[in-house]
Amino acid sequence: MGASDVEVARIAQKTGIRSRPIVGTGEFTSDLAFRATSALLERRNLSASNVDTLIVCTQTPDHLIPGVSSRLHGKLNMSTSCYAIDINQGCSGFVYGVQMAAAMLRGSSAKQAILVNADCYSRLTRQDDLTTRLIFGDAATASLFSAQPGGLRLVYSRCYSDGSGYDEFIAHNSALQINPDKQRGIYMDGAGILTFALRVVPEAIVNALADTGLKLEQICTFAFHQANSFVIGKLAYKLRLRPDQVPQNCAELGNTVSASIPLLLIDQSPRFKSGDLIMAVGFGVGLSWGVTLLECIDPL
Amino acid sequence: MGASDVEVARIAQKTGIRSRPIVGTGEFTSDLAFRATSALLERRNLSASNVDTLIVCTQTPDHLIPGVSSRLHGKLNMSTSCYAIDINQGCSGFVYGVQMAAAMLRGSSAKQAILVNADCYSRLTRQDDLTTRLIFGDAATASLFSAQPGGLRLVYSRCYSDGSGYDEFIAHNSALQINPDKQRGIYMDGAGILTFALRVVPEAIVNALADTGLKLEQICTFAFHQANSFVIGKLAYKLRLRPDQVPQNCAELGNTVSASIPLLLIDQSPRFKSGDLIMAVGFGVGLSWGVTLLECIDPL
Repeated sequence: MGASDVEVARIAQKTGIRSRPIVGTGEFTSDLAFRATSALLERRNLSASNVDTLIVCTQTPDHLIPGVSSRLHGKLNMSTSCYAIDINQGCSGFVYGVQMAAAMLRGSSAKQAILVNADCYSRLTRQDDLTTRLIFGDAATASLFSAQPGGLRLVYSRCYSDGSGYDEFIAHNSALQINPDKQRGIYMDGAGILTFALRVVPEAIVNALADTGLKLEQICTFAFHQANSFVIGKLAYKLRLRPDQVPQNCAELGNTVSASIPLLLIDQSPRFKSGDLIMAVGFGVGLSWGVTLLECIDPL
Repeated sequence: MGASDVEVARIAQKTGIRSRPIVGTGEFTSDLAFRATSALLERRNLSASNVDTLIVCTQTPDHLIPGVSSRLHGKLNMSTSCYAIDINQGCSGFVYGVQMAAAMLRGSSAKQAILVNADCYSRLTRQDDLTTRLIFGDAATASLFSAQPGGLRLVYSRCYSDGSGYDEFIAHNSALQINPDKQRGIYMDGAGILTFALRVVPEAIVNALADTGLKLEQICTFAFHQANSFVIGKLAYKLRLRPDQVPQNCAELGNTVSASIPLLLIDQSPRFKSGDLIMAVGFGVGLSWGVTLLECIDPL
């Protein structure tokens, strides 16, 4: 093995990430978003024209102007009465997006909302930076929200931010600000992000339990953002969670940014029984984090 | 006058835009957003730590990762309990943002939300494209939303999209998708956008009146997105509005994207009397448009 092969093996060993999906040449976030949303509409036997709210969470849009939601709206031939918007959030993007979609259903006239979580971080990792290049997977998910009871019910949601850590995970030269001392691409302060996650995630879970009057052992599943196995293992150890409470899917998928939690929920859904409580926990770039508590209403 | 001077004069004559603010070298959207938000907090004698929701609407972020809201959150030393996010929307971004901020107040635990509308389109106009370079102004506004009665009350909001017009206003080579046949920057199909605006804006206003049971003459002020004087004049003519119903500020400010409506509301606020109805109408890139109806509760 050359020096690089040794490094690749070491990173795979440490992160538990053995493979990850990467978009093809000529494919962009809108293509992933389109496939995920088309599949959701087909699975739910729903017409795109009946969707009144489309939220696309991405940090890797095709263009700055317009957003991916516009492209998706056009490709799916959605109704002009649809509220379509992009939101920019990374690994906390599912938790942030769920809170927003729920607020739109409860606090505006929205009846059927779709949240898309889609990113192609592979396009912004730097060729020579194996620590990011080997962990991020490109993926998209689409999740349907409606006031109709069924699927997973949102019980609780709380989001957090700490912009003082803005530089700990940043894509230099990716939009308008140019830093001539940096290559274009993602720079991650791995140690800083780890310290942050191990500090704020347990706190946010303790807050969620206090806010809802629940105990840790009442939560069947912790759907942690799939940053990597090392972080998830540390969090599980710190919180003294049982292995069956902490499913993972990052070995094959890598860190799929804001799509990682919904991908895990899809994987795990055959295990869910009516009444099961699932706590989804996102954390990452921003810095930004949050907790979503879901109750299974209709098991698969 | 050279050919270019003649062209500059012709565009100024047609658009009614004589000047526009442009960010300084080394200044970015987060700097404009910071100044606008600091000024709002000072004016309202409000501590940044009491803001629980921060929505930054921009299409010209400093970086793709993280969002401008993260930078702003850090610079203002805001609370970690704050929900901070960027949304991507152009000239309909105030109307879209108001609907979202209102939904967060009504449908989540948000109590004090700030919507920032901030863009530096000058960084994405092409040097040789006078039709866009001479009309877009760089600006930021910050608007406070709370459940406390006062200021302007949101009566009604409805947003629309038409992604089939995605290419009519697009910034090529601005994010991940690279088109080797295009320069980096904004491409506007001026005739297409004009036709679109003259078709959808009157329709959306008619819908808003039908939805609320109001008549055109009951609306004191139409706060149209300040695309340019030509478009606004055409809309006013088509709807048979009185000149006093259609204030403008684009002669000096240009088209300030999603900041144009809140800038106009600030300009006009000394004229507002208690009970006055103000209809804000955004339209542009996406394509995307919407109508917000506001009632003046506390005149200045």
